[in-house]
Amino acid sequence: MKIHDLTTPALVVDADALEHNLRVMAEALPGPRLRPHVKAHKCTALAARQAALGHRGFTCATIREVEGMAAAGLGDDLLLANEVLDARRLGAVAGRVTVAVDSEATIAAALSGGVGEVVIDVNVGLPRCGCPPEEAGRLAELARISGLNVRGVMGYEGHVVGLEDRVRRVEMTAQCMELLLQAHGDVGGELISAGGTGTFDVNTWANEIQAGSYALMDTAYAKLDLPFQPALRAVATVISVSPSGYAVADCGLKAMGMDHGNPSMEAGHNVWFLSDEHTTFGPSSPVAIGDRVSIRPAHVDPTVAYHERMHLVRGDEVVETWPVDLRGW
Amino acid sequence: MKIHDLTTPALVVDADALEHNLRVMAEALPGPRLRPHVKAHKCTALAARQAALGHRGFTCATIREVEGMAAAGLGDDLLLANEVLDARRLGAVAGRVTVAVDSEATIAAALSGGVGEVVIDVNVGLPRCGCPPEEAGRLAELARISGLNVRGVMGYEGHVVGLEDRVRRVEMTAQCMELLLQAHGDVGGELISAGGTGTFDVNTWANEIQAGSYALMDTAYAKLDLPFQPALRAVATVISVSPSGYAVADCGLKAMGMDHGNPSMEAGHNVWFLSDEHTTFGPSSPVAIGDRVSIRPAHVDPTVAYHERMHLVRGDEVVETWPVDLRGW
Repeated sequence: MKIHDLTTPALVVDADALEHNLRVMAEALPGPRLRPHVKAHKCTALAARQAALGHRGFTCATIREVEGMAAAGLGDDLLLANEVLDARRLGAVAGRVTVAVDSEATIAAALSGGVGEVVIDVNVGLPRCGCPPEEAGRLAELARISGLNVRGVMGYEGHVVGLEDRVRRVEMTAQCMELLLQAHGDVGGELISAGGTGTFDVNTWANEIQAGSYALMDTAYAKLDLPFQPALRAVATVISVSPSGYAVADCGLKAMGMDHGNPSMEAGHNVWFLSDEHTTFGPSSPVAIGDRVSIRPAHVDPTVAYHERMHLVRGDEVVETWPVDLRGW
Repeated sequence: MKIHDLTTPALVVDADALEHNLRVMAEALPGPRLRPHVKAHKCTALAARQAALGHRGFTCATIREVEGMAAAGLGDDLLLANEVLDARRLGAVAGRVTVAVDSEATIAAALSGGVGEVVIDVNVGLPRCGCPPEEAGRLAELARISGLNVRGVMGYEGHVVGLEDRVRRVEMTAQCMELLLQAHGDVGGELISAGGTGTFDVNTWANEIQAGSYALMDTAYAKLDLPFQPALRAVATVISVSPSGYAVADCGLKAMGMDHGNPSMEAGHNVWFLSDEHTTFGPSSPVAIGDRVSIRPAHVDPTVAYHERMHLVRGDEVVETWPVDLRGW
């Protein structure tokens, strides 16, 4: 099958770019130094490629992701890097499951749900989950007294991973990880889990990095000085060409995560705006009805979450089709 | 089942508000005066309620929506208000299917796909699909010569439906519909199809209105002077409360269309930002871990498209669960 035969909009992964990204990362952070985050691709077929390169532990953001990874035989060591108050489905997963906790209530939920292992989630500056660093030791003690295995700490510097200025990124990562290491001193355990694609080579304090976007990339991360190539695009069909100088492709904001702003088009086409099922754009050179165009998302995670499948392509050839099988909650 | 028993994030529809919205619209635009757009809810169970109130013709934005509506027994008169270049799946639908055309290529696609009926899509000012008004007659003639039944015209004033100033909305709708009526004079046929939720009572020129958002509503349309109530919200669980004055709920931007900006929270809570699976907010009054909170989307269409199901609720009781069965393409 050729790209031209796909029903559009179609999510397409360029095989060479994907392989480049996976290889570069596996060389930089081999084996357990990387705990790939599946939230960025939500695809067990892609996760299997990461596992084949030596990363056997994975990071998840939802219970569904944990369930799906275990069902796909990728459940050696799954970290749900998120807080949950009903852990019963997690406790029923056939695989090794560790859940983040940042409060007495989330510790109680792990216990009553039958999850035996936790990490203490430490707030390192991003206003989201995570206990204050000075609370981590007390929570670890509570968890251990309750019978849980406390494997260590995690702390995501999510407010730092997207900074384009590398010097600032390094400085702020250091500040964040100082907090995490301080908490780890109180907590103990083998895991110091942190980081993302933007800090994969900057965060030298964590002993495992939770990067996910590096595999497929997006235009936001492409602004940083990272060695990863854009691998993901939506292929769309030009369905209308106006004599007023614009054209319309059949990929809209139900096929594209929009929180980071408009996507970008290949071939220098200029995106005007997106509607539910349309991208209106100013062509850099004449386009004709029926032409295929490529649209690159500004944010990979919410883009992938809209699609049932993605197609691995090499040149014009569709070589594999992968279900995006970790969607939902 | 109670709302509190739902896995969160959960999309919830308040039954009383939905019924109010459907009734008010059916009174204003009875029977065929409304051709409800299913793209806003992507749910055949909800469409069946619209049909039960007398609207037997529906508007669709994707081939999948047409297929799903017909499969659900709602295929009396389906208008795909969008251009397609491969109409073979449409031609195979068991039901009455009409497709929008705005070029020779889309007329050829309807023919070769086996779709027998078309409307001429006319550009009335929104830079998207639609032929120039002065081209409509020529395209209609071409379509008729080719053997297609040309049912009339459509022209969506999408750049007008969201204008908060009613006077301006009326003025601009008049300008748009002047163009559409001019085209209809050249095209003929029984259909003059246009409009949306924001112009449902303003657009008195079209003989059918393609409104969709009115059923569930969103915070963008809530800014207008419309008689529809907010019926849709995501229910989320507070999973973390920080001593620094914010809290975190488990509904993120993979559960919420973000192109119109941040959603809004009930109870006066103040949304700070959304991450993939989190809303960080400033509570208006103290919240506790485990509390349920409600988040209203800024844009209904791309929000619904993220969810597998929506739950119809009355008070705290979940009375029905509806698959969002028209997703994808």
